[in-house]
Amino acid sequence: MSGANLPIRYPEEARLSDVPEISSLLSSDEALQLAKWDETRLRELLGEMHASELAELLLSCRKDEERSRLIESIPDELLGEAMLELPEGMQEDLLTDFDADEVEEVVEHLDSDDAADFLQAVDKGVADEVMERLEPSDRREIEQLMSHDEETAGGLMQAELFKVRTGWSVEKVLQVLRRFGREIENLNYVYVVNDEDLLEGVLSLHTLLFAEPDVMVTDLADRDFPRVLAGQDQEDVARIFEKFDVLALPVVNDLGELIGRITADDVIDVIHEEATEDMYRLAALSDQDDLAEPVTITAGRRGVWLMVNLITAIAASLVIAQFEATIAQIVALAVLMPIVASMGGIAGTQTLTVIVRGIALGRVTFANARRTLIKEVSVGLVSGLVFALVIGTIASLWFPDLGVRLGAVIAAAMMLNLFAAGLAGALIPLTLKRLNIDPALASGTILTTVTDVVGFFAFLGLATLFLI
Amino acid sequence: MSGANLPIRYPEEARLSDVPEISSLLSSDEALQLAKWDETRLRELLGEMHASELAELLLSCRKDEERSRLIESIPDELLGEAMLELPEGMQEDLLTDFDADEVEEVVEHLDSDDAADFLQAVDKGVADEVMERLEPSDRREIEQLMSHDEETAGGLMQAELFKVRTGWSVEKVLQVLRRFGREIENLNYVYVVNDEDLLEGVLSLHTLLFAEPDVMVTDLADRDFPRVLAGQDQEDVARIFEKFDVLALPVVNDLGELIGRITADDVIDVIHEEATEDMYRLAALSDQDDLAEPVTITAGRRGVWLMVNLITAIAASLVIAQFEATIAQIVALAVLMPIVASMGGIAGTQTLTVIVRGIALGRVTFANARRTLIKEVSVGLVSGLVFALVIGTIASLWFPDLGVRLGAVIAAAMMLNLFAAGLAGALIPLTLKRLNIDPALASGTILTTVTDVVGFFAFLGLATLFLI
Repeated sequence: MSGANLPIRYPEEARLSDVPEISSLLSSDEALQLAKWDETRLRELLGEMHASELAELLLSCRKDEERSRLIESIPDELLGEAMLELPEGMQEDLLTDFDADEVEEVVEHLDSDDAADFLQAVDKGVADEVMERLEPSDRREIEQLMSHDEETAGGLMQAELFKVRTGWSVEKVLQVLRRFGREIENLNYVYVVNDEDLLEGVLSLHTLLFAEPDVMVTDLADRDFPRVLAGQDQEDVARIFEKFDVLALPVVNDLGELIGRITADDVIDVIHEEATEDMYRLAALSDQDDLAEPVTITAGRRGVWLMVNLITAIAASLVIAQFEATIAQIVALAVLMPIVASMGGIAGTQTLTVIVRGIALGRVTFANARRTLIKEVSVGLVSGLVFALVIGTIASLWFPDLGVRLGAVIAAAMMLNLFAAGLAGALIPLTLKRLNIDPALASGTILTTVTDVVGFFAFLGLATLFLI
Repeated sequence: MSGANLPIRYPEEARLSDVPEISSLLSSDEALQLAKWDETRLRELLGEMHASELAELLLSCRKDEERSRLIESIPDELLGEAMLELPEGMQEDLLTDFDADEVEEVVEHLDSDDAADFLQAVDKGVADEVMERLEPSDRREIEQLMSHDEETAGGLMQAELFKVRTGWSVEKVLQVLRRFGREIENLNYVYVVNDEDLLEGVLSLHTLLFAEPDVMVTDLADRDFPRVLAGQDQEDVARIFEKFDVLALPVVNDLGELIGRITADDVIDVIHEEATEDMYRLAALSDQDDLAEPVTITAGRRGVWLMVNLITAIAASLVIAQFEATIAQIVALAVLMPIVASMGGIAGTQTLTVIVRGIALGRVTFANARRTLIKEVSVGLVSGLVFALVIGTIASLWFPDLGVRLGAVIAAAMMLNLFAAGLAGALIPLTLKRLNIDPALASGTILTTVTDVVGFFAFLGLATLFLI
């Protein structure tokens, strides 16, 4: 076989197109056409696709009926994984049609962690029926997985792993592994437990392969290998992966018993999710906001935050309203006042974003919070000074009638507002964190309220005192 | 050995504290104290730490001299990895003190990808000297790695991998693996290449372990296993990892020759980096902004974007200035105008964030751009309608003298601005992408300029037409 002409299949991305397109094999329109005249060929093509490609295909359908039509032709062994990659709302809509037989067939092809997630998405009644049909040991495993909060290590882990006893030799491990390890995907580590199932150490497949047959596993196992507790937040799990550069982590319960493992590919999804969540929350978006959902749903979700913003914007306007008489005398103030507010908003957002991201990545902690706060306030003071000079000069030249006095007023307001921006940008997320609220949640809205109110109040207040 | 009392070492995070603290073993102050009275003990403690813990320790020092002091006591085999986890600016500052001997000792302990990164961070002269001292084969390897752009697959990959020829049997592979594979970290896949070094397929260690000794590797290898091109952007690489749930990807050059591999743990760092970059850019921050850098540097970096914002804020003020006469007659307009601008800014940011994130995750492509644009504009129209009614009513009641006419003007302005926000929020990042500019870069600033200008112009313009 000559290698040069091999049909190498690049993922679509590998063609270095500008923006990579997913769904390399066929579009949803093509698939729906095919569904009409060649069901067998469609089934075949869908069977060749990767679960995430199938999910993209389903996402790109225009209607739920089209999705349901394609779902009928997706082979059972791919359907579960593909459905799990869809947004949760869409999952639930599509799964209402599934009866217990269909769910059972899908669940059979899933790893325990995916099976638990899938059963959580279907109707409670159907899920219970399927659970009853499972073998007792599988049922117990899945029940255990379902008992954990979705966003914790327990919710991420799978039960499939390969564990060996402390007293075993390398030879025995390899024998048992050859007999029972075949079904475990991404098997990279062997877990060494004692008679009470307490995790004693971790052994990479790699080490095992290079070891002499008669060496005992306890002598080879890495006892310092990191582990996570079932109750730990998934963000912590992601951080530990990043820190220790491992491909899988064992999960233990509070007693130290090994109950599951999390692989790096699951964590990649978590990291994407968490980053999206923080970005969305900073932008006053619900983390359920999705490109594929209908206009009215999206408008509703975003409307909640727009309403919150409307209320805070009105609050800022109430501040302006206190100074109507001043503005009536000097209209230039109305022209200039948005500049002070806007600069405060941007500077505050800069600080806020650095702190929220720092908290998410574990770089900002309560231990260094004070130092971080001092730094951000100092940055606010420095830029306050610089931009006070700039805007002071511009304002003096722009409105020569009011001259230096107007310049001094706007300069002072700018300094005050950039100082407030640094202070609020750092204090708001740290305070939310202290109250155990996601620091990204609503911080942007609170922040711009502060910078708008301080900006308008300082500028118009000082103008009333010194220009009238 | 009884398991119950084993000294299980949890990473600090595993203690479920509110905010996890890094640097579990000792603080920088403790380390610096120890440096004075027990150098041996300090060296011992530092040697027990993980590279990322050492990086956190160095980061938490207050001055560069303190860092240099601790660096002296970090064992060579950990120093390189620890330094590579520091922010780039700090890396370069600390590395200016290193001579060729020191660099050589550090580089010896690094994988090829890290060695290339490290040599790129030290002074050019020192790097050249060290390169000359390397063995020719190592030198060629590192030169090859250094030739790739840092943010591409080539820049991420390492040269260490295990490749076998198409004609080999499982038995032969295992023999060779036992002899030569020991040094390769995270060895999970064996790469099958033909005589011209073209990648023919990938074989997991796992499959190898369960195969009969006399089977040929060509029959076992997965020929459809995804691969990436050396020139591909690291964001694409991350997306392929996410899509195919693999633990490592082979990297090929344009001819299809295998030249390296990327492991999942490297990609986790990339995903964090890329998410931080997008978040920072959306918030008008330089992606070099760092918590650990001095106040003046940070103020300078942020000042650039504040200056851009000042210019756009002044542009919005110039719009207001056109209507000074109108405001002088109806001061209520000055009170209400920030509301219209603010709502447009928030709604636009919502759309912008969804699109930027969608592009980053490969969900928004040129193929579905039109549909996405229509959806976002529709959302803008729907919320425009709703909030026009709300703010129209509020304004009529707030300023009864102007009554329904003022309400109608602000309602129309709000509708126009939320429509503009949806349009601009979607069009700006898509256009930037089309121009091959990062869609997150500056889009926030352009967007708020649009919503401020449209907001002020529509509101004050309509007021001039209908209220005066």
